[in-house]
Amino acid sequence: MISEETIIKLLIIDKLIHRQEYVLRELAWEIGVQPDLLERIADDMSKNYLLNIEKGKIIWNPADNPSTLKPWGWLLIHKPLLGSTQEAAKGASPWSVIVAEYMLAGRGRHGKKWYSNLGGLWATFKILTNAQTASMAPIIIPIILVRIFRKSYDVEASIKWPNDIIIDNKKIAGILIEGEAFRDQILLYVGIGVNINNDPPLPDTISLKNILNKLTPRNRFLSLLIGWMSRMEKLSLEPEKIRENYMEYLETLNRKVLVKTLQGELIGKAVDVRDTGELIVEVGRGEKKVLDPTLTFELRHID
Amino acid sequence: MISEETIIKLLIIDKLIHRQEYVLRELAWEIGVQPDLLERIADDMSKNYLLNIEKGKIIWNPADNPSTLKPWGWLLIHKPLLGSTQEAAKGASPWSVIVAEYMLAGRGRHGKKWYSNLGGLWATFKILTNAQTASMAPIIIPIILVRIFRKSYDVEASIKWPNDIIIDNKKIAGILIEGEAFRDQILLYVGIGVNINNDPPLPDTISLKNILNKLTPRNRFLSLLIGWMSRMEKLSLEPEKIRENYMEYLETLNRKVLVKTLQGELIGKAVDVRDTGELIVEVGRGEKKVLDPTLTFELRHID
Ligand SMILES: [Mg+2]
Repeated sequence: MISEETIIKLLIIDKLIHRQEYVLRELAWEIGVQPDLLERIADDMSKNYLLNIEKGKIIWNPADNPSTLKPWGWLLIHKPLLGSTQEAAKGASPWSVIVAEYMLAGRGRHGKKWYSNLGGLWATFKILTNAQTASMAPIIIPIILVRIFRKSYDVEASIKWPNDIIIDNKKIAGILIEGEAFRDQILLYVGIGVNINNDPPLPDTISLKNILNKLTPRNRFLSLLIGWMSRMEKLSLEPEKIRENYMEYLETLNRKVLVKTLQGELIGKAVDVRDTGELIVEVGRGEKKVLDPTLTFELRHID
Repeated sequence: MISEETIIKLLIIDKLIHRQEYVLRELAWEIGVQPDLLERIADDMSKNYLLNIEKGKIIWNPADNPSTLKPWGWLLIHKPLLGSTQEAAKGASPWSVIVAEYMLAGRGRHGKKWYSNLGGLWATFKILTNAQTASMAPIIIPIILVRIFRKSYDVEASIKWPNDIIIDNKKIAGILIEGEAFRDQILLYVGIGVNINNDPPLPDTISLKNILNKLTPRNRFLSLLIGWMSRMEKLSLEPEKIRENYMEYLETLNRKVLVKTLQGELIGKAVDVRDTGELIVEVGRGEKKVLDPTLTFELRHID
């Protein structure tokens, strides 16, 4: 279920996507709500969007509106509301990036619901690439995210195995990678959700705005992401370096972990990650378990 | 709160408004839902819309899509989703008709919520007229509705004072009239809600589809309504005839009624209606009460 207020916010976004500003009264008429109500709702939106109300106008900072980005070599499709960006990407051509402000049925790994509340960055990148790059994507994408957080925002993000991005043990970004064969190549659907200016959707999650103590224009993050995505194949040419980077950023290594798999729960110490992505967990007296990411439902750091 | 499914239905409408048909798979991609889910939802919609799924296509009968109407002398604005058509009409020019498939904050008389579920006809007519016609609107509009039901659908509708339209004592249409002065004339906002192909939203309501036992194309009703609205001034030139018509169509006359006013409840027999619209109720031993429609919250026929 969705609140009427959230829907009105999405109608406001829908109007402002192609026009930076609107006279508040005119916007109220277009949406069919009283101007006072619209002003109250727009004011509330300014907690999650770089939106200002001044002199009877409502103005959206273009650097926070993905529709204003024209990334070279990519088709950007930005919609207020979608079922999910992963599904919407199915019909798009390769090298499209689909961005939604809200998803009715956002998916995370293992069919878990993905909470896409307003002000976050919810995107799917559709990429046509070779098998080598595709097989490394689960390692490369979290590295890209950590690099952006560390180098462009000075924020100490790290990886929780297999590919959640955490800060202070709280999730700030999630990744869902799906693929299909296309002739001799692979079509990759890389879904990335980043808590940017949205309120943290769940316990143990955190948003960039909580860390920076201010709202940040989402297009900066999105352009950095697009830039790195364009260079995925190049990155995959140096598998040793990528693996080294992944291990460097991996918070899980040497931590005590609680893991839920299809076979049940186990507790142990994470001691290594194989080249092919499996986590090795020492569960006692030298006994080791090999965990496949696709069969691991949940992992928590518990020390 | 609104269900995700209702929102997906509104996204389907939004796509079909300007295109009579869509390949189902392409529509699923555009909305970002799996084709199987879209098909299930579209199938469910065909209970409330003249919508067909055949050979992998979804097709909306244009006679059920208000956007296909081009009424002479009127500007028709049709939106899937609005706060309310009354508010949206505020920014429109006179002789506009605003139609919404769903209202987030539909209003009835006395600020009561108006339930606008999918498949009904929810419209506001914005009319610039003289004071004489404006003062008669509360009598003329219900007459127009009853005439349409009786003459074009062969359905025995009648008026429940002051201006609900009922069939078998169940509400099928409601009216909300608001006005503002504009120079020496009156801007009228005539809100009309008709349960056409929607499921009856409340107990004691009924839809045209229940009576006809089939879905009916809404544009026929809407064009008839627009035609009559264009002739309101002409109708108001014959006040005697209008009054006679109103009394003829008024179910409430000589009925035992329970009335809720701001001063409390009363029970009595409805014996007359004044030229100025007040209902006269005999409450016992010749004692009569005069009820102003604007101060009467609810009236029920109880015999
Ligand atoms: Mg630092």
